[in-house]
Amino acid sequence: MTSGPDVSTDARTERAEPTADDVVALLSAELPGRVDTTDASLEAARADKSGHRTAGRPLAVVHARSVDDVQRTMRIATATRTPVVTRGAGTGLAGAAMGGPGEIVLSMRSMDAILEVRPDDLLAVVEPGIINADLNAALAAHDLWWAPDPASRAISTVGGNIATGAGGLLCAKYGVVRDAVLGVDIVLADGRLLRLGHRTVKGVTGLDLTSLVIGSEGTLGVVVGATLKLRRLVPGDVCTIAATFRDVQSAARASAAVTASGVQPAIMELMDATSLASTHSYLGIPAPTPGAAQLIVQTDGPAAGAEAEVIGATLAANGGTVRVSRDRAEGERLLTIRRSMHPAMEARGKTTLIEDVSVPRSALAAMFGEIARIEREYDVTIPTVAHAGDGNLHPNFTFDGEEVPDHIWAAADALFRAALALDGTLTGEHGIGTLKRRWLADELGDDQWALQRDIARVFDPLGILNPGKVFAP
Amino acid sequence: MTSGPDVSTDARTERAEPTADDVVALLSAELPGRVDTTDASLEAARADKSGHRTAGRPLAVVHARSVDDVQRTMRIATATRTPVVTRGAGTGLAGAAMGGPGEIVLSMRSMDAILEVRPDDLLAVVEPGIINADLNAALAAHDLWWAPDPASRAISTVGGNIATGAGGLLCAKYGVVRDAVLGVDIVLADGRLLRLGHRTVKGVTGLDLTSLVIGSEGTLGVVVGATLKLRRLVPGDVCTIAATFRDVQSAARASAAVTASGVQPAIMELMDATSLASTHSYLGIPAPTPGAAQLIVQTDGPAAGAEAEVIGATLAANGGTVRVSRDRAEGERLLTIRRSMHPAMEARGKTTLIEDVSVPRSALAAMFGEIARIEREYDVTIPTVAHAGDGNLHPNFTFDGEEVPDHIWAAADALFRAALALDGTLTGEHGIGTLKRRWLADELGDDQWALQRDIARVFDPLGILNPGKVFAP
Repeated sequence: MTSGPDVSTDARTERAEPTADDVVALLSAELPGRVDTTDASLEAARADKSGHRTAGRPLAVVHARSVDDVQRTMRIATATRTPVVTRGAGTGLAGAAMGGPGEIVLSMRSMDAILEVRPDDLLAVVEPGIINADLNAALAAHDLWWAPDPASRAISTVGGNIATGAGGLLCAKYGVVRDAVLGVDIVLADGRLLRLGHRTVKGVTGLDLTSLVIGSEGTLGVVVGATLKLRRLVPGDVCTIAATFRDVQSAARASAAVTASGVQPAIMELMDATSLASTHSYLGIPAPTPGAAQLIVQTDGPAAGAEAEVIGATLAANGGTVRVSRDRAEGERLLTIRRSMHPAMEARGKTTLIEDVSVPRSALAAMFGEIARIEREYDVTIPTVAHAGDGNLHPNFTFDGEEVPDHIWAAADALFRAALALDGTLTGEHGIGTLKRRWLADELGDDQWALQRDIARVFDPLGILNPGKVFAP
Repeated sequence: MTSGPDVSTDARTERAEPTADDVVALLSAELPGRVDTTDASLEAARADKSGHRTAGRPLAVVHARSVDDVQRTMRIATATRTPVVTRGAGTGLAGAAMGGPGEIVLSMRSMDAILEVRPDDLLAVVEPGIINADLNAALAAHDLWWAPDPASRAISTVGGNIATGAGGLLCAKYGVVRDAVLGVDIVLADGRLLRLGHRTVKGVTGLDLTSLVIGSEGTLGVVVGATLKLRRLVPGDVCTIAATFRDVQSAARASAAVTASGVQPAIMELMDATSLASTHSYLGIPAPTPGAAQLIVQTDGPAAGAEAEVIGATLAANGGTVRVSRDRAEGERLLTIRRSMHPAMEARGKTTLIEDVSVPRSALAAMFGEIARIEREYDVTIPTVAHAGDGNLHPNFTFDGEEVPDHIWAAADALFRAALALDGTLTGEHGIGTLKRRWLADELGDDQWALQRDIARVFDPLGILNPGKVFAP
């Protein structure tokens, strides 16, 4: 398709490239009441939660209210060759959903309906704009939940969770987004609607395009609906184990010992000394012992109590000072310290670059050793928390101003290379976006990088879906 | 690449299409001792366990012993435009791995090494030719297992399980192959080696090509290695519940009631009256009550006993005559009846076409109603077993001779349409292969069918990987 009827009927554009004003006029005519060009909206759409922003404002924000709205938007985008950045709540940490000059930002936030909940089939069908926590609040009435629990779950959308392939705290036991989606409906760059996947537990009809769309960061199509795989709420107790260690590597080794013990915690979070001190200061509670690191572990389900005993003993045997609690409220208080990490970083008045490397669980202590080396070599402090149960680390770099200074990029580069050398990966759950695109080929290799980009081109031959993200050369 | 050095140095093929003899000669020169053109091998490679065979013998069977062997084979295939059918143990049920005239059959069966077992990271790295049961026997020494358990696990390879996206009996609780593979190494059609996926629990670097390869039935590349996600062996009891019902729809409704109760069985198998009678006869045990159907349910883990009580009560409340056993040996005896289904069908001396539709669990009784209707309308008997815990049914059509008679195809067509009308799918775990390719576009829609085929072309531009399977027009 080289031009659509929307353009060819506009005399001004028949022989010339459509201007930005033309595109906005076409959108406004086709989508009355959906097109937002207010300063505040355009400015907000330049940024996400990564601390970055684009070079300038996008053309417009389209607030889609229906699949038809999305299809109309994409037909205009294809006809005018206008790039489209799909956006949920704007809580991404990799710069994947930021809109810049010449781009349409397609906001899915208003499409937030729960279309169907089927307790008998353990599935729900939802629109992508629903907030993860709002969905789970509604599902709880049916004694159900959707397991993916990114730390952003109170503010991030299910569509955004799907676009990034989000993880969270509970993943080692309850899986990531990839494990919790049966199907997605997507609108292609040219406006066609495809229904991918199944409503069945099993299904191997053709290629698994549902998995391909999960984590594709807006490069393959616009997710306009999702069929989610649900779980029953877990009955029984929740037990919480808090253990402090003399240093972070001791804590990391102890977490590996828990994994090796064969007991599967629901949550196992690690905080290094700087993170622990920052959150204690932020919460106004007494400072921890200098240098001390902490593990917070939770067990759930019918064997929660027995598992907590085994884990407590394992941590103590590995040098931890251990406290076990069967009180849910006390457990929540202990986890609040971990959940205060991002607000504590923000409260320091600096910009924070949150990284997201993942390593095999057995390499967690080695990765903390590498982080200490990088701190020394690059003269930076890297407060780090980790989902220790699955080997996913979030090292934080803080700096002044909006631009990442060169020495921080150099330290981040050393961090990525260290993770890859330990058989790890650049990103466990945040995605590539703009912030990590320069390292993508280092992990994939040039052949796989080109193959992945060519697959994206099958979905989007004109390259109008989120250009410059993920596969930017 | 239009021609490789292997061909251009061969004077006979410089100006002409290579002949079959040329291709075999090239293979033999490059892969001494690996190229098998014995009558028995070529004849065996024409068939799988679907009861079908190709129109004639393939050119040769190459027994790869290394990744390098696979790369050499694919370079010759690309240079000479020769189709390649990748094959494991030949136990497929959809005709995906059968080799025909003009084709190279690339057998991975000899690449059966376990390269690495990491209990601390709960992963193993294996070659594709290892038999599922052999892998699990080796893992048991580490107190580990790989969960996918197709009924063929004693005879099928891990690579074949990956190629089909296999399921099995334990899937509702422990997942399918897609949930149990972290990464795959593949050789592309042109001989390049790509390493896809991760060794980490989480990883969202770029597109999820690992999932795309799982279930791709040899159309994207040759799987030459896999990094598998393992589980610890489940501690505690195994309880078995056997329940008989007056008819199959009562049994199906009772299984839906178990799912709705919130208790998750490890196994829940349903056998209809004809299946039950056939297996009893095959095993030489007293015949069941005419018309009666059976559910065999197992629970495991720390709450196995309590869960078995709940399930037993649910089945009794839904009309079942229930027996609960905590004895593992007794449980195995009960499951033996279910596991004897395929031998019992084979012993009838007829050819069996085993179908594989899957429906949402709540639609299981309705699907049995449709099967009864199709039996009446087409005057056929369709003995059916089902993985009732996940809604996956295996209706069996039996007939005389090798060719599926037209009225059987007509009945199968009605079966597929009924499953799709119930929001189900053509194939839960066996794949499309040759047997279901004519229905693929009915489920995917023409747009998605074409998109999937175009994605396959990115991996295999010349269309030499398993042509005529899955995407044959």
